[in-house]
Amino acid sequence: MPVARVGVIGGGQLARLMQAPAIGLGVDLVVLLEDPGSGAGPVVHHTILGSPDSEEAIRSLAAVSDVVTVDHEVLDLDLLRRLEHDGILIRPTSATLALAADKLAQKRFFEQAGIPVACFRPVTTIDDFDRAAADFRSVVLKMARTGYDGRGVWIRPDRSEAERVLAEGDELLVEQAVDTTVELAVVLTRSPSGEVVVYDPVQTIQQGGMCRAVLGPAPVTPHLDEAARTLARSVAEHLESIGTMAVEMFCVDDRLLVNEVAPRPHNSGHHTIDACVTSQFENHLRAVLALPLGDPSLRSPAAMVNLVGSGEGTDPRHRLARGLAADPGAKIHLYDKSPRPGRKIGHVTVCDDEADAALERAWQVVDVMGGEVAR
Amino acid sequence: MPVARVGVIGGGQLARLMQAPAIGLGVDLVVLLEDPGSGAGPVVHHTILGSPDSEEAIRSLAAVSDVVTVDHEVLDLDLLRRLEHDGILIRPTSATLALAADKLAQKRFFEQAGIPVACFRPVTTIDDFDRAAADFRSVVLKMARTGYDGRGVWIRPDRSEAERVLAEGDELLVEQAVDTTVELAVVLTRSPSGEVVVYDPVQTIQQGGMCRAVLGPAPVTPHLDEAARTLARSVAEHLESIGTMAVEMFCVDDRLLVNEVAPRPHNSGHHTIDACVTSQFENHLRAVLALPLGDPSLRSPAAMVNLVGSGEGTDPRHRLARGLAADPGAKIHLYDKSPRPGRKIGHVTVCDDEADAALERAWQVVDVMGGEVAR
Repeated sequence: MPVARVGVIGGGQLARLMQAPAIGLGVDLVVLLEDPGSGAGPVVHHTILGSPDSEEAIRSLAAVSDVVTVDHEVLDLDLLRRLEHDGILIRPTSATLALAADKLAQKRFFEQAGIPVACFRPVTTIDDFDRAAADFRSVVLKMARTGYDGRGVWIRPDRSEAERVLAEGDELLVEQAVDTTVELAVVLTRSPSGEVVVYDPVQTIQQGGMCRAVLGPAPVTPHLDEAARTLARSVAEHLESIGTMAVEMFCVDDRLLVNEVAPRPHNSGHHTIDACVTSQFENHLRAVLALPLGDPSLRSPAAMVNLVGSGEGTDPRHRLARGLAADPGAKIHLYDKSPRPGRKIGHVTVCDDEADAALERAWQVVDVMGGEVAR
Repeated sequence: MPVARVGVIGGGQLARLMQAPAIGLGVDLVVLLEDPGSGAGPVVHHTILGSPDSEEAIRSLAAVSDVVTVDHEVLDLDLLRRLEHDGILIRPTSATLALAADKLAQKRFFEQAGIPVACFRPVTTIDDFDRAAADFRSVVLKMARTGYDGRGVWIRPDRSEAERVLAEGDELLVEQAVDTTVELAVVLTRSPSGEVVVYDPVQTIQQGGMCRAVLGPAPVTPHLDEAARTLARSVAEHLESIGTMAVEMFCVDDRLLVNEVAPRPHNSGHHTIDACVTSQFENHLRAVLALPLGDPSLRSPAAMVNLVGSGEGTDPRHRLARGLAADPGAKIHLYDKSPRPGRKIGHVTVCDDEADAALERAWQVVDVMGGEVAR
């Protein structure tokens, strides 16, 4: 008999990466997935085949689980609300997931809560866009929903691009494009009792809106480090999140602006598997099961680089031996996914005395394995 | 498509603990087991139900695996030899497994190879026993085969106990009982190419012949530490072992004697999961797949204590929350096994600035969880 069963909606890399700490805790993962042949499917015993938006499938998942959590956030929120109403325990809750899924609602919520965000406004017409462009000088255009990994985000678009995007009819917002000194992410875990553990803030290196690399600790002053932790904690408390959450921030000189939140284990916390006492995935499981949280301390400076499909016909899975040989201290994590261009198919973490040295080593392993290299 | 498939004969905690690094490497484990409800069964996708001594079952396992390895060493060696002869790749080989399974053959092999062992001789009659007891002054009586975790070992038995054991008709040996200063274990991994990585020697704390706790680094002089590494490497090279292996040693003042070897990931290396750059399980998988080996460095002093069923009606699985609350930095590993008295059902690892402090903390967690406590 396992200690407990955690149902996961979605079988991608996040569910896959939950399995190692689940094994330690004696917890069974049950994963609802559409593709049993990649991601979490090949590494867990209990899978349920189905769509993450199928009521029948989620009810089947919940029937064998003590609690249900999620691997991604593009979900049918009305369905989740209905299931919660019927007594199914979903962590994070549909209310938290709804705010994460709607960038406009999220910004409004933060503004009301006194959490600093970049100037923003909804746009529905090209006139709205023109006014925002004039007022903000430089803008980012975003779809309010379903954008991730750079999809649905247009950085400093020209007028004709904005017209084209507006013609699609999606709900959109513009934000002021700020001159960011450094982009930060703070991962934390909050349990139903309100216990919170905050990981060390990290620097994220973005490319085309996708997180490519992470360095910890972040190269910021102790004052900013502390401010980032406090801000992230405040976000989690306002959202009443349960589980692990990432708060992405822009650091503009000595000011912090919250960019987005992801109420789940997040790419900016993948280094915690190898670099922290307790990983973001273990703490996520502990939190959704209302177990006490673990020490989030960073054991050493570290860097994580995503392994991204390069579209050059090379498959990093066939170059594992070269990657391992390149650096005996590197930790390679493969997701058992086909290397489509731009797709995250693994990550490499290196711990070293300095984060910069760790980053250089991690990039080298990615390079050797034939992943897209974007230094 | 996984990077490779590794078949494991046996579905206990060792197979279970291989799954986390298999996930990282993108490797599928396929486990041949009799009890799908505990140990490795609940945490891997591919299982084959059957006896570890069933030719049909092992052939089924091999048919879907790139290489076959083992979770324990009480195996039908004639069967494994036959399968190897038919071209099935088994690592470690049946030759290495045969020497590990037969303590008398092992001692003779070591003696011939110039590897220091305690004085020993076979015994078949009580006269043999009497002579050995007179010559060696103090003896340990052992079954040559199938003894583990203290079963099949009698420390300083009196004559009547020896008579009783002899009457069972098993193949037996006696060894000189040495006045051990400290018991050491050296875990290492050897690949088919002959590449060897050696983990830091650890102190093992035995109770009734069962390993109860491990501390690393071992409290020995640099000279002895180096001698232990050299000796372990020599053992692995003589045995031509492939995969992870543990070499247990007695330290008698400044002399080292090899006690036993286990040609597989071993209890004395469980701390490597949380305390080393690359765990003994990851390096085992790398070795059996002929992949380059990982850095075995100890990242900090550490201690591991086994969680052993106490027979007091408490189930540590029901006390996980208490264990986690007792020490946010402790790493608890449960094997999803019922807590029969004397049965290893999990382990707790703690990293700290000093191994002694780590040991104290690990014992406290075991105590809180209701495991047998034997400080």
